[in-house]
Amino acid sequence: MMRALVLKSGELAYASDYQAAPPTPPSKSSLITVRVLQAGICETDLQLVAGYMGYEGVLGHEFCGIAMEGKYAGQRVVGEINCACGNCEYCQRELGRHCPQRTVIGILNHDGAFADQLYVPEENILPVPDSVPTEEAVFVEPLAAALEILEQIEFNATDRIAILGDGRLGNLCAQVLQQQPGEVIVLGRHQAKLDRLDQLGIAAALADNVLAERQFDYVVDCTGSASGIESALGYVRPRGTIILKTTIAGTQPLNLAPFVIDELTLVGSRCGLFAPALQALEERAIDVRGLIDSRFPLEQGLAAFERASTPGVMKVLLDISDE
Amino acid sequence: MMRALVLKSGELAYASDYQAAPPTPPSKSSLITVRVLQAGICETDLQLVAGYMGYEGVLGHEFCGIAMEGKYAGQRVVGEINCACGNCEYCQRELGRHCPQRTVIGILNHDGAFADQLYVPEENILPVPDSVPTEEAVFVEPLAAALEILEQIEFNATDRIAILGDGRLGNLCAQVLQQQPGEVIVLGRHQAKLDRLDQLGIAAALADNVLAERQFDYVVDCTGSASGIESALGYVRPRGTIILKTTIAGTQPLNLAPFVIDELTLVGSRCGLFAPALQALEERAIDVRGLIDSRFPLEQGLAAFERASTPGVMKVLLDISDE
Repeated sequence: MMRALVLKSGELAYASDYQAAPPTPPSKSSLITVRVLQAGICETDLQLVAGYMGYEGVLGHEFCGIAMEGKYAGQRVVGEINCACGNCEYCQRELGRHCPQRTVIGILNHDGAFADQLYVPEENILPVPDSVPTEEAVFVEPLAAALEILEQIEFNATDRIAILGDGRLGNLCAQVLQQQPGEVIVLGRHQAKLDRLDQLGIAAALADNVLAERQFDYVVDCTGSASGIESALGYVRPRGTIILKTTIAGTQPLNLAPFVIDELTLVGSRCGLFAPALQALEERAIDVRGLIDSRFPLEQGLAAFERASTPGVMKVLLDISDE
Repeated sequence: MMRALVLKSGELAYASDYQAAPPTPPSKSSLITVRVLQAGICETDLQLVAGYMGYEGVLGHEFCGIAMEGKYAGQRVVGEINCACGNCEYCQRELGRHCPQRTVIGILNHDGAFADQLYVPEENILPVPDSVPTEEAVFVEPLAAALEILEQIEFNATDRIAILGDGRLGNLCAQVLQQQPGEVIVLGRHQAKLDRLDQLGIAAALADNVLAERQFDYVVDCTGSASGIESALGYVRPRGTIILKTTIAGTQPLNLAPFVIDELTLVGSRCGLFAPALQALEERAIDVRGLIDSRFPLEQGLAAFERASTPGVMKVLLDISDE
């Protein structure tokens, strides 16, 4: 029995006596118990509570903890969230995050990290370098998601890139793309967040102040909102590309004709590889501390979710145990 | 005054006394009068009647006619349908079909070919080789649209490609892609059309008989139906690409989450270049005669539209004048 934030029948609740059944990922790798130190609340968690994926179980897929067994026993670790079979054509192409049989920690048939402990396949575990503080290591998953764009797209020096959304993921995507060829601007709705980007040397503007003139080669939708795709259509040039990061529960009305008329490309982009993200944190190439809004103990998980779902709030962390 | 099929206030009507006002495309090129010999009814024409683009005027963008002036005076010609400015950044990249100022023959601010004559910018005109019959030259526009896919995608020998839709455009796309690397199958709903593809050496099957197993690297939506995109999502593999040819008037409900979860790519694909299409017809690389369903005189244009909108019917031609 342990403490956990559990989603069931559409209701999120704190349980002091959650009885964890070990998940059954398809991997042949051993399941390692990880004692959770800290975890982060993600936009996806908010969507899961809203019904996305129909998930039930312990939430939480951004975490740093202590491995209790295996070759990293006693060390701080993070864990790749897609638990794959290792044998299928996707796994053989190092695309285990698309393994059809996978479980996904805190998202699909696999209890997550908003709990005293969770189970992670040994092959998914990476040790955290000593120089990376725990609160930064929690960001390895969203940072990997931002870096995933580089696995999908090769940018050119002449590219004009708009990032829609100045929130958690928008900020990370902006920091990642700012280090690539091309010209980046973040279009957001919160002056304080735009100022923070500006301090990082990243161009940023209130979306309402930038005419939707369809001039951008790439538009990255990090709005987390159903309206993001429509906004993106206003900014992307004919023959341009929309990179879709936003996931929304349920259907939305969409006019697909502009995609054909303007021969647009839409590229869905999700999880990324942890190793490059850990490396970027170790090299201090990305600033994640500035993204932390607040911390809550696990018992106050519901208040933490309320805070995380308040418009304009950046990353909310859950302090789960001490080192 | 001339005969014409005119769309106005959502109503298609035959007029014997249509007063043509010359269109005003942005090009500096002279407008050439083309006397129309034959024209074809396209799925897009049916959509325009349903309200797509809010177009009003003479319909028709698939045609072969006689140039009445200019350097091809007296010769059989076809005309690229996008009438561009020639100066903007798109035009300078040979992407005049995305010129923001363009008119589009029979689709956007430019009277079309279901009439005794139409105006075409001189630079849009290509002469039809003697060996290509008029009824085949009418297919240059839809064939160019099929060939456009090759301007956007480079296929590999290991690619599995599904074409959804055994209609006019599906057939042409199948013939084009069959000559590329990769393995093509057409999934349709009409046994007679599938048999015709089979006779051309192209694998074809009833869609209902093929499990939607998400195994295709590329899925080309040529269904012309709002449900095509949902079908495509059932066939495309994670990290695969949907090539969208279907244009539909208005919005439709769509769940975008699969695009993110499975990191799918959607590529909108529209008009193509006429020269390669004319060349393919001259080389007899593509069979278009087998696509002709029936012919109607212009006066019976409404009956022709009714025939063209009957499920399962291939290309309906309008005989407008003799050579």
